Amino acid sequence: MKKNFIVLVLLSLAITTACLPQAALVFQSDFGLKDGAVSCMKGVAFGVDPNLKMFDVTHEIPAYNIWEAAYQLKQTAPYWPSGTVFVSVVDPGVGTERKSVVLKTKSGHYFVTPDNGTLTFIAEDMGIEEVRQIDENVNRLAGSEKSYTFHGRDVYAYTGARLAAGAITFEQVGPRLEPKVVTIPYEKPRFENGVVWGNIPILDVQYGNIRTNIDEATFKKLGVAYGAMVSVQIKNEGRVVFAGKMPYVRTFGDVPIGQPLLYVNSLLNVSFAINQSSFAQTHKVGSGSSWQVKIEKTN
Amino acid sequence: MKKNFIVLVLLSLAITTACLPQAALVFQSDFGLKDGAVSCMKGVAFGVDPNLKMFDVTHEIPAYNIWEAAYQLKQTAPYWPSGTVFVSVVDPGVGTERKSVVLKTKSGHYFVTPDNGTLTFIAEDMGIEEVRQIDENVNRLAGSEKSYTFHGRDVYAYTGARLAAGAITFEQVGPRLEPKVVTIPYEKPRFENGVVWGNIPILDVQYGNIRTNIDEATFKKLGVAYGAMVSVQIKNEGRVVFAGKMPYVRTFGDVPIGQPLLYVNSLLNVSFAINQSSFAQTHKVGSGSSWQVKIEKTN
Amino acid sequence: MKKNFIVLVLLSLAITTACLPQAALVFQSDFGLKDGAVSCMKGVAFGVDPNLKMFDVTHEIPAYNIWEAAYQLKQTAPYWPSGTVFVSVVDPGVGTERKSVVLKTKSGHYFVTPDNGTLTFIAEDMGIEEVRQIDENVNRLAGSEKSYTFHGRDVYAYTGARLAAGAITFEQVGPRLEPKVVTIPYEKPRFENGVVWGNIPILDVQYGNIRTNIDEATFKKLGVAYGAMVSVQIKNEGRVVFAGKMPYVRTFGDVPIGQPLLYVNSLLNVSFAINQSSFAQTHKVGSGSSWQVKIEKTN
Repeated sequence: MKKNFIVLVLLSLAITTACLPQAALVFQSDFGLKDGAVSCMKGVAFGVDPNLKMFDVTHEIPAYNIWEAAYQLKQTAPYWPSGTVFVSVVDPGVGTERKSVVLKTKSGHYFVTPDNGTLTFIAEDMGIEEVRQIDENVNRLAGSEKSYTFHGRDVYAYTGARLAAGAITFEQVGPRLEPKVVTIPYEKPRFENGVVWGNIPILDVQYGNIRTNIDEATFKKLGVAYGAMVSVQIKNEGRVVFAGKMPYVRTFGDVPIGQPLLYVNSLLNVSFAINQSSFAQTHKVGSGSSWQVKIEKTN
Repeated sequence: MKKNFIVLVLLSLAITTACLPQAALVFQSDFGLKDGAVSCMKGVAFGVDPNLKMFDVTHEIPAYNIWEAAYQLKQTAPYWPSGTVFVSVVDPGVGTERKSVVLKTKSGHYFVTPDNGTLTFIAEDMGIEEVRQIDENVNRLAGSEKSYTFHGRDVYAYTGARLAAGAITFEQVGPRLEPKVVTIPYEKPRFENGVVWGNIPILDVQYGNIRTNIDEATFKKLGVAYGAMVSVQIKNEGRVVFAGKMPYVRTFGDVPIGQPLLYVNSLLNVSFAINQSSFAQTHKVGSGSSWQVKIEKTN
Repeated sequence: MKKNFIVLVLLSLAITTACLPQAALVFQSDFGLKDGAVSCMKGVAFGVDPNLKMFDVTHEIPAYNIWEAAYQLKQTAPYWPSGTVFVSVVDPGVGTERKSVVLKTKSGHYFVTPDNGTLTFIAEDMGIEEVRQIDENVNRLAGSEKSYTFHGRDVYAYTGARLAAGAITFEQVGPRLEPKVVTIPYEKPRFENGVVWGNIPILDVQYGNIRTNIDEATFKKLGVAYGAMVSVQIKNEGRVVFAGKMPYVRTFGDVPIGQPLLYVNSLLNVSFAINQSSFAQTHKVGSGSSWQVKIEKTN
């Protein structure tokens, strides 16, 4: 009897735990937080399974800015475990022909989104395992057929919630597509003739640091030691916006307050900053495909 | 023995699940997110039951704007399941005679709020099942009697949490009141002599679309087909702010970028927009009871 | 058999409940919500234990403003139950010599943070039970050793999550330090020769009310009755910014719309406000150590 006792307890514990969904459902959008749009998505998901664990990347993607949506996913997704379901809704083409898809990456993460470029970096970084088109005949909130414009709530949140809750399998999302996604062309980082080139994918709005897309390995080809000065030029549409020298250091505290620095940030990308100030604001630097960065050794 | 095994496991699973609260607790306020006010409310709720599932509508209601609080609840509540407990704290009259109430709607949703107009649309849309006044002698955070101004935390969050957690029944909220709530007068949508009239309850701040209070059924009385042009006039306090023609279409993608459109939004209300731009900003359109919309067929 | 039945069920229920972490994990930072930084911290915590209950104080602390971080914790922490784990990351000295610590207060709350002044008020209000330095050799996200700048995610969120989940004990955080923390000097409230002095620790950005650091007990030494007028002077760096009279009342509704008032707020501190308007904006009042408040009786 004693043995049964223990077995039963453990078994029931295991079943209970198994019944609680263990995959996080993580939302991103350009809806902002000033109205109830995000809450509607979460309400629909809660209706699918009240035990779903819901989180957010950000809802402050600038309106219709697919490029930034793609970049925030790239930054954030690797820190969530395999199995996490992301729902990203930045959808300037709502109602047009862009497909509604779920991407399963080689890392085991899921991304529910319009296939409009949002998956540009994720596909590159995490690898495409399989892409499926959402079958809206079955994966759509009941009663929402009359609605033409809130796919975020009726299709994406609903499908993401059902996937995270285990109410549907990945196969039940809909038909399998070619293993590719729509991507936004952009200038990749490179080392050429003693110069490192790259662009500025995004601004760090909060602190005003400049994050480039130049990875540490590419930068290292310059052969610059910690503490050495480098020459940095930043152009927008061909016009020089910033040109100056700064030390390559480990961290902000390595330079005096108010001084510029080049460092490798937590995503292992080359960044420019001013210690306790805003590089972006001081030098009026922006982000996007028209921005070009050039780094050279100084003599 | 085997049968016992299964029965036991299922039973314990059922009990465990039953013990976890299944009703969501959803907060709304005009507190903003820049300080810890919202967090204090959630801390109090967590103290009531650590397994409560807490969410938000928005905390960016403009300060003291009861009208907007009412509208955001209208937009959001229908997408949360029956049984959900909303706590809405927009309370310009804190400390005055407005009553603290809980409304149970015919749809089975609960709304914990000062009865100051916040329930205007909810009562209309979801129906009043019963209204109870919060008995602050029993439904108030212990030790908070000395506090005169944070009802949101000490009374509304606390009572909402206890209701969602099942720590009190609806009857234990306090005495039953007449089945009515304070409402804000506003011009309702109507079709008259070939013209559709309405107002603009709220602005879509993120995208700048104009959502009217004109429902699809009222609009349909105009007898306009998809693709046809309509004539739209928008007035504020009697002055014409916008007058122009635009097509009635299904979705943004049906007009070129930069062009205006009339569409039925996801809440099935008539809306005006500019594809990939802001109608509100372009034409300086606002919202509130002083705004009037007039739609006619073109010849 | 029946008795076994019940015992088993209760026991398995108890074990299941015990296995779900009951301590809240509450984040604060100056990261803002415009990118995925906060989400990365939560992703790491979710990876530690998917059943962790995560919340926020605010992520809108002005960049590098340790003073405000300290004040928001003071305001919020008392409303969360004992055992709650706070992770506060406002860290202008990241990469410098400030220690990474966990403070356990006498009230049983935990604070994971750089020891840079963030704990000024918490230590004062809640009392220091024990301070431990985070041993980053063991309490650091695996694979993050190459990262120099995101301690918030790799060390603080990770350690806070493990503590809240019960994956480590407080002792396993790292070596015990002296029971003290870095504090920011500031002028404390006092009553002297018939005058009450104090400062303005923070602005209520949403409503524009002025919260002083003057507690009710100190204010009461003035001997002013409800309804009586008091004389208020506010200086910044020695210059008079505001001087005027206002009544001491219980609540906003006690004065006409647009009129100033002195009241004791929900934290039991003396505050100035204008009914349904912004005192801060109207009189251009700010906050910080350079702001001085003087209150006297009128004759």
